[in-house]
Parts: sequence; structure tokens; C-alpha cells
Amino acid sequence: MTNDPKLTYLALGGAGEIGMNMYLYGYGPVGAQRFILVDTGVTFPDMDGSPGVDLIMADPGFIAARADRLDGILITHAHEDHVGALGHLWPRLQAPVYARRFTALIAQQKLERAGQDPKIVRTAPAWPETVEIGPFRVGFVPVSHSIPEASALVIDTPAGRILHTGDLKLDQTPLVGEPWDPARFRSIGDDGVKALVCDSTNVFSPHHGRSEADIVGPVEALMAEAKGLVVATTFASNIARLRTLAQAAHDQGRSVVVLGRAMNQMIQNGFATDVLPDFPPVVDVQDAEGIARGNLFMLATGSQGERRAATAQLASQGYRGFRLKQGDTFLFSSKTIPGNEKSVGRILNQLSEQGVRVIDDSDGRYHVSGHANRPDLEQVHTLVRPANVIPMHGEHRHLVSHAELARSHGRTGVVAANGAVVDLTGPEAEVIDQVETGRLYLDGRVLIGAMDGVVRERMRMALRGHVIVSVLLEGDGSMADAPWAEIVGLPETGAGRKPVAEMIEQAVDAALSGAKRAALRDDAEVEKLVERAVRTAADELVGKKPVTTVLINRFEG
Amino acid sequence: MTNDPKLTYLALGGAGEIGMNMYLYGYGPVGAQRFILVDTGVTFPDMDGSPGVDLIMADPGFIAARADRLDGILITHAHEDHVGALGHLWPRLQAPVYARRFTALIAQQKLERAGQDPKIVRTAPAWPETVEIGPFRVGFVPVSHSIPEASALVIDTPAGRILHTGDLKLDQTPLVGEPWDPARFRSIGDDGVKALVCDSTNVFSPHHGRSEADIVGPVEALMAEAKGLVVATTFASNIARLRTLAQAAHDQGRSVVVLGRAMNQMIQNGFATDVLPDFPPVVDVQDAEGIARGNLFMLATGSQGERRAATAQLASQGYRGFRLKQGDTFLFSSKTIPGNEKSVGRILNQLSEQGVRVIDDSDGRYHVSGHANRPDLEQVHTLVRPANVIPMHGEHRHLVSHAELARSHGRTGVVAANGAVVDLTGPEAEVIDQVETGRLYLDGRVLIGAMDGVVRERMRMALRGHVIVSVLLEGDGSMADAPWAEIVGLPETGAGRKPVAEMIEQAVDAALSGAKRAALRDDAEVEKLVERAVRTAADELVGKKPVTTVLINRFEG
Repeated sequence: MTNDPKLTYLALGGAGEIGMNMYLYGYGPVGAQRFILVDTGVTFPDMDGSPGVDLIMADPGFIAARADRLDGILITHAHEDHVGALGHLWPRLQAPVYARRFTALIAQQKLERAGQDPKIVRTAPAWPETVEIGPFRVGFVPVSHSIPEASALVIDTPAGRILHTGDLKLDQTPLVGEPWDPARFRSIGDDGVKALVCDSTNVFSPHHGRSEADIVGPVEALMAEAKGLVVATTFASNIARLRTLAQAAHDQGRSVVVLGRAMNQMIQNGFATDVLPDFPPVVDVQDAEGIARGNLFMLATGSQGERRAATAQLASQGYRGFRLKQGDTFLFSSKTIPGNEKSVGRILNQLSEQGVRVIDDSDGRYHVSGHANRPDLEQVHTLVRPANVIPMHGEHRHLVSHAELARSHGRTGVVAANGAVVDLTGPEAEVIDQVETGRLYLDGRVLIGAMDGVVRERMRMALRGHVIVSVLLEGDGSMADAPWAEIVGLPETGAGRKPVAEMIEQAVDAALSGAKRAALRDDAEVEKLVERAVRTAADELVGKKPVTTVLINRFEG
Repeated sequence: MTNDPKLTYLALGGAGEIGMNMYLYGYGPVGAQRFILVDTGVTFPDMDGSPGVDLIMADPGFIAARADRLDGILITHAHEDHVGALGHLWPRLQAPVYARRFTALIAQQKLERAGQDPKIVRTAPAWPETVEIGPFRVGFVPVSHSIPEASALVIDTPAGRILHTGDLKLDQTPLVGEPWDPARFRSIGDDGVKALVCDSTNVFSPHHGRSEADIVGPVEALMAEAKGLVVATTFASNIARLRTLAQAAHDQGRSVVVLGRAMNQMIQNGFATDVLPDFPPVVDVQDAEGIARGNLFMLATGSQGERRAATAQLASQGYRGFRLKQGDTFLFSSKTIPGNEKSVGRILNQLSEQGVRVIDDSDGRYHVSGHANRPDLEQVHTLVRPANVIPMHGEHRHLVSHAELARSHGRTGVVAANGAVVDLTGPEAEVIDQVETGRLYLDGRVLIGAMDGVVRERMRMALRGHVIVSVLLEGDGSMADAPWAEIVGLPETGAGRKPVAEMIEQAVDAALSGAKRAALRDDAEVEKLVERAVRTAADELVGKKPVTTVLINRFEG
């Protein structure tokens, strides 16, 4: 068997789901391949599947086990779903990090916040300059997206060239950041691209994407028309949008206030790395009370309904003493990410109850997407002319549809969800292996496996309640005292107004009294008896089978 | 102070939220008013706010306390958000139930399932016939909606006429059920309508609504084009849609299979009450394996991603042994209700992974809404010519926008969210009082108040985990044994790989050992000491402050 070098692609996260992007490229003989990892993103938890969890990220187990062969971690851009896990996972990876200047600054902040050394981040130059990382020569190609300095990656290897798009849109007037340059993509294609690994987010959007510049007019009109205070929320990292909104307000004689740590930090980051050319003067919220509402504009974090963000605070108790009033206008210059509809809806209604006029993204005038739509993707394929298209950054159905799009133009489209190892060595990409992938949860301070059962236990308590039974037994197995039950998360009285804890205690007492002495000398047997008694009694009383914890105290006396 | 009779409107549920509709009309002198209650609906729980809960409904406390003056419960139509709570709440209300024939049958089924007597339901005739209920004369006016026999209510009182629309759309070709008849609404208006209490669901939809008949063509084309099996899901109660889908399949030579109890029941109900004129022959799923997939069509429950419904089963392990295959088509002939996007998305991707072609409602060809859009609402206002418009059935922002719409045409628009008592006696409606409203949870078998804390306790356990500490003390306050901790829903090892339960036990031991004897003789003091020790230790180890339950056993002697 030959062991010729192989060029491989493997999604550890982000292919078959939205979020937590993590893609691994390998080159070399099997068993001695060298690797680069592209992006280390997170996704956000919810009560539905991950209550109490702080962040969700791809499990880097596959590459962590081969960390000695990892030559670099490359970050395409500074969105959380691409960089958010860096600080948490770096200890398992221990490789230098490469990113362009703005992204590098945020990567450094991530590392610092997680107690890691920010100096491991190296600032990469923009294409056509390249950096050599192991057997890979990588160029960071400026593309437009909803954050400055987003980059596609040209990855040159002895087995050929890969173009990894990262997140992109074809915006020739992005206002802040680099415009889309079709000539650049065409020239990259001129040298022959073996595989285009391509963003699939908007593959179901049938029309060409719109430019960031398209919303300037509507925003200006809104600022001019509004009589009272105008507040706008969007993603903190969408610096172009922040500037558009603030500039339009400023032009109408409104003072600009920026609420929320993340937005202020992002504006600072923009200045520090020269991606933000200018921004209107900013006034502190403490001074806002002194300004007539018609002369005031506020930018606020929390467009997704995040409970602690400035928007949620403004919608309820106010932000640092500042409250909204009848006649104010609140603009959601953002898209609601699926899953956040209820949180956002709650805020829309809280605002409505205060007499605030709410404008959301439903008519599309105040927001444009950061991703390439279906015809835009076709244009990318056409410019780059790759032999193979490997859709990434999408749910499974997005990958399938994007691969179909590629095939409809005579290219090979490969659906490779997380864990599929794609061999790119030959002319035709093919899936040659399937490795195990998974998710890690940052749960408070601890990284746990999504399948460890910790969160499942919490969900079971949330659905069924928790009964704790304390049993006191003598050494010989006789009961030293009546059993005692505590109920948490169950009603106090059940069917027929019966007291639940008391009825459970009676049921346990009866079960243990009726059991053989020998059984009661065995903890496992006692537990089983108690659990069964609790389950039956609770089911009858409240219609639930609660999680049960049994504490057995024995006196050897 | 005079005590002239007053005509009042009070939403107990459904105004300021979508779902759990419950509206109360009163007539008579204050303190001796007689009442009718319109609708007793539910809404569905989620992990986010109501984990483990089975159904959410409006708290009928206000009218339950005056049940002796409740003359009737009127059900406008058989959707869950209008009739779903009937069986659970009837014991607190004890009044006769009125509905038209199809609705009455479902109301009876609801009562029976909850162990109540179905005979308390009286079948009401259609307008222009009326029924006398206390001081109210009520007519059930046929309107079109996404379920047969939906009714608006003409409520005539000595103080004037109210038109309560229920849910409606202006569909002149609904295929099953009664078409929208503008002349009927105009003639109701001819006699003078004091208040139009009106559906607000689609007030933000700017174009005229489309007819159920509009989807026949696209569905027929889809059935003709599809090579393999076609499965479609929609709401079980949308009998017109079930028939359209099944008929189109049948016309293309496909055998029709109906999966899921709810759909089969609804078709039976349709026949039993003569609202469903015909339906193609139905084949049992057991016989489906013998039929070529291109000659097969299945209707499946679960369009909202419900975990146990036929759609979810087909998307995962199969339904009663029947599995989907590459080349099959799955149609969502339905809208995803906000909050269900993730559950539905999960199913779309499971289907995609099996090679199934998925068609959702995103291009609007295979689904139409059951509610009147903004210009339709304008048309209703114009036909009825009410003095006052009271928007109902909507979130707060829907009510506000609908009231503005009314005002823009010179009518009085009153935003009256749940709890606002609206006086309709005079020419101009006005809010005269605010009463307490709330929600009840059906939690297993028990109805609990949403604010009782039971569900909050469960959510706290889901977010923070649960630590149980057992403390054994002698009568004099000395420790009889070292304390013992059980952790549920927390990782076993925390920061620095330290064992969490053991570290918590040590912390509790230290706290109790360092405490005064006198303190340890007081259970409340011991609890406080233990809780504080657990919280501090857990926060350090895992970054969470868990729910803590302390079990204290004392030996006297």
C-alpha cells in the first residue's frame, strides 16, 4: 500500500448546522499529515436543548489528539461563530493563531479573557501576500461581509489550491471595510482551484443580495421623520451599520449615545486597527437626560433579545436610569436569528406597551444580510471555476441545495457534513472516511461534553421536578425513622388536593415496610424500591415521574 | 351614585398575546352584572418559560369568583387556542356551553377527555337565528377561517350590539366550510354596531389575504411532478387543506394514507357533522409498503415539529415501521409559528439527511393564512361601520397597530389588553378599570398558577443544577457524621479537575465545624450555613450557584 501525501478537508463544526465553525485541512502521508485549523467558533445555548450552558462549540477532539501536527489556527473574521471558542479551546490545540489586524485584535481579547497569552496571535497580511504555515501557503483575501476585514483563504498546497470563502457577500459598496472585488476572485481562479469550500447560509435566498449602501436612504429618512428619541439596535460587530446609523442621526442634529460594552468596544477596535475611518462624536448616557429627545439617538446592544443587553434593559426597567417614553422610536436594524423570535417578540411588545413606535426588519428596508444569496453564489462559482464545490456554513439542507447548484453547472458538488473526511488529492473530491465529531459546552467555568449527561440531568429536572428521599436505616435493615421526602419543582398538592410530599413519604414507607430485611441491607435494592414508590405515587398525584435522589443513612450501632 | 346597567368587555386572555383566548362580556348593574364568556383557549408551553408544563391557559379567576352570574360559555371555533382549556376550566365555571355543530362536537370531546359531562354543550344555530343567554341575544355568524364552521358572534344587549369576530379571513372560496359573505357583515352593521371586537393577528400583513383555492394549482402540480412518495403536513384541523392535498394526490393516482390520531379524528369529525362533503379513500399505513412510492401520498400530523407527532417520527426512526427514502418529497403546507423554528428546522435537516426533498412555506405557494390581513381588516371595519373598534387576538403591538388603523378612518380604537375593563354603555368606549389576570398551567394532572413558583424552581434547577446536602447532627448540635453531598446536573469535576461533590462536602464540613454549637441547634441557621458554603464552593469550582436542598437529621439521645 502506498502512502502518498493526501490533501484532506474535514469539518469539525459548521457543516450541517449554523454556527460553531471549525474546519481542518490536512496535507501529507496518512498518519503523518500536517494540519491547519480554520476558525474556532461558538453557537449560543438555549433552554430548549442546553439550559444553563454558556457557550456551545465544536469538540476539537480529532485535532486535539494530533495537536503536535497542528501548524496553525486561522481565523477568517471576528464573528463569534468563527472566533468565539478560541480562548476556551486553545489550551487543547497550542498552535499559533493567524488573522488579519482587526480580527487578530479581537482574537487577542478572546485569549486574554480566557487567561491565555494574546501573543500567540500573529497578524497576517492581506492577499496577494501569503504566509507559510507548515506545508500550506495561505493568503487572506479581503471579502465583504457584515464585519470589517472578513477574509477568504487561498490555501496552496503541493496537491493544489483550495479557496475557503469564510463568510462573504458580494457588496461593492460596504461603506466600512473592503468592497467585493470580482477580479480578485477571477484571478485566484485563473491558477486553477481544486476545491471551493463555500459559505451556504443564504443558498435559499433567490435574489441577488443588497448592498449596505442601500439602507442609508431609508435610515436617513427615518431619522428626519422621527419626532422623539430614536434608538437602534444591531449586531455590535457590524461597524458599518453602527456608523451608518450614527452618521444619519448626527446629520439630523441628533447627539449619539452608544449603550452596551460590546458596541463601545467594537468602535474602539475599529479605530485601533484603522478599519473605522470616522464616527460621529459620542455622548455619555448620563448626559442624555439633558438633551431634547428629538435631538437624541442611541445605539443599543441586544438585537437578538439577549436578556442583559441594553435593548432588553431599555424595554423593561430602563438603562442606567434612562427610560423610554411615548413617542420614541425603536429600530431593529437586524435580522432575528431563528430560535430568538420569542425573546425578540417579548421586547417588541414591552416597547409597544410603553407607547414606543417599533420598526423591525419585516419590510427589509433597514437591514441587509451579510451572506451571498443563491445567484451571488453562482457568480462566485463562475468566477473561481473550481473542479469541486464543498458547501460549508449551513444546515444539512443548505449544503444539499448548494451542492445541487454546483452540479447544475457541471461541477462536482460534495455534501460533507461534520466528520466527513474529503480527499482532495485527485481531480474529483470524495468522502473517504467518517470520524467522530461532537460538541463541547462551556458550563460555567467547565468544558463538558454535550453527551456527558450533565445537561440531560438538568433538563429532566426541569421537565419532571425532583424528589429527594432520605431514608434512615439500622444496621440490620430495619427503619430507624420514617422516610422523609423533599420535593423541588412539583406542586405541593396534587389530584384531590392531597399533599404531595406526605403522600410520597407514605408510599415509600409502605414500600420499605413491606420489603424483606435482606433487601433493606442492600443500598441498591433500597434505592430501587424508593424510586419505584416515588414514581408510582407522583404519577398518580401529579401526573409526572420525577427525577428521584435517594439518600440512605445507616446506623451501625 | 346611580347603578344603571353597564355593558362591559374584558379580555381575560388573548389580548396582548397570541393564544389562550378568553373574553368576557357583562351586562347589568355593577355588582349584579350577568356574564357570557367567549372562548376558553390554550397556548403551548416551551422549555424557555414553562418546562414540563402540558398546557397554558388564561386564569379565569375573575369570572370563576362570579360563576353564579355566568350564563354561558360560547366557543367561536374549534382551534386549540379557543377551545383547548374547556375541559380543564369547566369545573370552575359550571355554565352551559354554546357552539355550532362541528365546534360543539370537538368541545364535547374536550370535556369527555377531561372527565366532564359532554351534555353541557348545546348546539347553536347559525345566524340569522339567535339564542338567548341571560340578557344577551347571541347569533353565530358563519365566517371563513382555517377550520370549518368558524363563527363571529353578534351579541345584542339592551345597551346595543357588539360584533365579536372570532378568527376570520375574507375567503370567498374556502373549499370546505362557509365562504366569506360581505353582505352579511354589511347587514349586521345596518342595525348599528357599538363595538367591533376584532381579530388582529395579521394586522402587519400589508396585502389582501389569499384564498384557500389559490393553493390547489401548485399542490396539483407538485403531486404530478414528484417521482417518489409525497408526504404533506399541516394543521390537523385545517380540513379544507387535508382535502385539497388528498384530492390532488388521489387525482394523480396516488393512494392516500393519513398518519396521526388527530388528523384521522378531524376527518371523522368532519363527516359526522356534515362539514366535509367527501374525502378520497384512505389506505392503512400497514398496506403502504405494498404500494409503489410514486403512487403513494401521506398526510402527517406535526407541522410545528412536535416531538411525538407523525412528522417527527417519519423524520427520525420512521412511523410504525414505515421509513422515508431518497427521492421522497416532504411538503410543509403550513406556517411555522414563532418559537417553533428550531424544532421544525431540526426536522427539515433530518429529512434532508435522508435524501428527502423538503418543500417548506418559504415561497408561500403551498399555504395561506387563516386570518384577515390589514386591508381585509379595513374592509371589515368599512362593512360593519362600528362606533368603536376593540382589537383582540394579538400581541400588544398588533392591538396598537389595529387601533391606529381604526382611528385612521375616524373610528374610536381602544387598546384593551388582558385585564382592562372596557365600558361600552355610552357612545364612546372607555377603559374604566383594570382587574388582575394571569395564567394557569396544566402541569401533569394539576392546574397550578404560573406564578406559584413551581415552574420557576424547575427552571432554576435546569440553569444551575441541584446540590443536596445531608447533615447528621446530635441533639447538642455536634456533628454525628461528616456531611454528605449529592450533585444532580453539575459536572463531576470542576476547575483544576477537582471532584465537585467531595469539595462541596469539605466546604460544608468546614462551615459547620467552624460554627457555634448554638447555631447548629437551629435548623434555619444550619441551612443558611450550608447553602452559603455550597454556593461559594460551587461558584469557585464550576462557576455556578446551584439550587441547594439541605436535609437535616438530628438524633436526640
